[in-house]
Amino acid sequence: MATLNGNYRKLQAGYLFPEIGKRTKEFVTKNPDALIMRLGIGDTSEPLAPSVIAGLHDSVDRLSKAETYSGYCDDGVGTPELREALAARYASYGVNIKVDEVFVGDGAKGDSANIQSLFGESNVVAVQDPAYPVYVDSNVIAGKTGEGSDGQYDGLFYMLCVEENDFFPKTPSEKVDLIYLCSPNNPTGAVATLHQLKAFVDYARENKAVIIFDSAYASYISDPRLPRTIYEVEGAKECAIEINSFSKEAGFTGVRLGWTIVPKNLRCEDAEPGELNNMWSRRQNTFFNGASNVVQPGGLAVLSEQGQAECKKTIDYYMANARRIKNGLEGLGITCFGGVNAPYIWMRTPGGISSWEFFDKLLNETHVVGTPGSGFGPGGEGYFRLSAFGHEKDIARAVESIQDNLKL
Amino acid sequence: MATLNGNYRKLQAGYLFPEIGKRTKEFVTKNPDALIMRLGIGDTSEPLAPSVIAGLHDSVDRLSKAETYSGYCDDGVGTPELREALAARYASYGVNIKVDEVFVGDGAKGDSANIQSLFGESNVVAVQDPAYPVYVDSNVIAGKTGEGSDGQYDGLFYMLCVEENDFFPKTPSEKVDLIYLCSPNNPTGAVATLHQLKAFVDYARENKAVIIFDSAYASYISDPRLPRTIYEVEGAKECAIEINSFSKEAGFTGVRLGWTIVPKNLRCEDAEPGELNNMWSRRQNTFFNGASNVVQPGGLAVLSEQGQAECKKTIDYYMANARRIKNGLEGLGITCFGGVNAPYIWMRTPGGISSWEFFDKLLNETHVVGTPGSGFGPGGEGYFRLSAFGHEKDIARAVESIQDNLKL
Repeated sequence: MATLNGNYRKLQAGYLFPEIGKRTKEFVTKNPDALIMRLGIGDTSEPLAPSVIAGLHDSVDRLSKAETYSGYCDDGVGTPELREALAARYASYGVNIKVDEVFVGDGAKGDSANIQSLFGESNVVAVQDPAYPVYVDSNVIAGKTGEGSDGQYDGLFYMLCVEENDFFPKTPSEKVDLIYLCSPNNPTGAVATLHQLKAFVDYARENKAVIIFDSAYASYISDPRLPRTIYEVEGAKECAIEINSFSKEAGFTGVRLGWTIVPKNLRCEDAEPGELNNMWSRRQNTFFNGASNVVQPGGLAVLSEQGQAECKKTIDYYMANARRIKNGLEGLGITCFGGVNAPYIWMRTPGGISSWEFFDKLLNETHVVGTPGSGFGPGGEGYFRLSAFGHEKDIARAVESIQDNLKL
Repeated sequence: MATLNGNYRKLQAGYLFPEIGKRTKEFVTKNPDALIMRLGIGDTSEPLAPSVIAGLHDSVDRLSKAETYSGYCDDGVGTPELREALAARYASYGVNIKVDEVFVGDGAKGDSANIQSLFGESNVVAVQDPAYPVYVDSNVIAGKTGEGSDGQYDGLFYMLCVEENDFFPKTPSEKVDLIYLCSPNNPTGAVATLHQLKAFVDYARENKAVIIFDSAYASYISDPRLPRTIYEVEGAKECAIEINSFSKEAGFTGVRLGWTIVPKNLRCEDAEPGELNNMWSRRQNTFFNGASNVVQPGGLAVLSEQGQAECKKTIDYYMANARRIKNGLEGLGITCFGGVNAPYIWMRTPGGISSWEFFDKLLNETHVVGTPGSGFGPGGEGYFRLSAFGHEKDIARAVESIQDNLKL
């Protein structure tokens, strides 16, 4: 008699974005003529850069000829060319990452969900609150938490990120084992300083904890003093795994390509030297078969000099959207955070209403779809996320609609 | 103090194919002039069909223009078009599968590794022996087995597939909960009859067990009496999940596209109606973000009338290779199985030597790389797998080299 994995039943709600989609669909059904402006899900809207398109066409062409056809990649960890190009990017930050510490995957979402598989059930997991829901949900399903209530789970350690601490937490007051950090942060748009990251690296080294550092939005940092990788902190290679993505840098969201760094000398209480690196390789070889061979050369094109110049233009375009949203909302007296070194605006809901109440209000009054802060954890209650990914004219129209129609 | 998932240490050897790669690389280093002929990994070699190439170019073009650009798919389960086309394929077999029972993923390997996540640790898992290693390794890592020794794991139920039962097992003599079946079989090339599958469906319904049916090679079946989906058996939708792939049908191995059917009325001891279907949707939305949007239209092209006609030619090409290998080996007096409705030849090692001994012998004497049967489980010891995926001229050269150089 097969029995199900009861951890799924602990999950408290559907995954956030399908729920937003459902409510939006219901609104559209009732109001078929309303023009919906979507600033919710962090999805890109602008075409891929010309050199990336050329790279993708080239890989399709290669599959059309016997001389250049390729099947499986050597293993599930990425082509040598792409791994080398990623190691070279780290070198450009002054950080030494070896090629076999780079694992190419199909995006930051999957890797950040699966990375917990390297660690046993008894590990105490710490997450920022609010946080990207995948960190929490993956650990719930894997049995690393207790039951949930009021949007929180027993056994998880929540690191509150609020206005008082500029949305970046202090190191935990008790011992925790796995620490998820996201910078630039989704959803708050806050970016950790080198000093803030150093405190976590020191904590992790002292407590033999492991940091899982999600830097998927690193290419949106324009302030040169802010770290783009946790490995800029000395000693981080002993205690941190870094996850990153081509999705936002290259407008590549549906194309599915990212990477994870598992350093050779990453250690935890009971790992032999190199063991965690080997384990991730084994995991990827067993549960995954590599990112698509059509897609990987596109990643290589992103990292080329021309690709970087072209992608920079797209990033500037989205960041101009971010400024437009932020200025528009602030002009209405709404308090906003983020949006400077990150493509998300994190606004305080006007009048102190709940995040989902504001979701419904914004949709009804202005036809703009955003993301309720409470969907990222209880610490997000009373906040709301707007995404800068979208066509300039749609963003302009959305801001105008908010200015004209939102009843404050 | 983070501690690792100790289940990884139970794994008894590296994943089979990296080990083959390693031994081959060592041979090439010592014998730089040897022309290696690879009949090992089941990897395709022929270019993709023209209509599939056109489909892929078209999806790249769509990403290059603002009007047709798309980011994330609605959710992690595939485009509606592709899900509908797959449901229509089942309809063509006389089987009614609903669109929301179809989940598009990035290939049969990942889905067959991850599907066990739906079930709790206490489930007793049954596998064919020999079997595709992913079924076993994924359950070991997930903690559904005990320790391993001599290539087997405590707590797993092995269903021996040998010459005496034509490489398809009887239903288990004791109660098991999850049953992995692969037909056409990798590695043995055996194909289950409707009668044989019915016995397992009856067993599963009686014992509330769940069958995980891997039919990745279904399009290699030419005998019209053999079932191409387990859902041809009445009642299978109550007790079976089916996993399939575009990899072998379309020569798509590195492109990464497949699908899994989780019926709405699949049940187990404690699942509510529809719950397992919902759980898989939730899993894919949390740990995965959908197959690449470049790739999914390629799958649609494969399923088109023209795509099917073109892919059929490629399948015929590979099956001509299979006949050539089989005839060549049998001409040397070697006993062979499979290779008729499946692209694998399963040969008995000559002289009763071990599978890895034959691997080394074949590589050294003939420069042909194959796959040791024991790599698929202890039941495969004394057998060896040769793959029909390869260029005709390379296959011909390999067969000739075996005929000329293998010391029998």
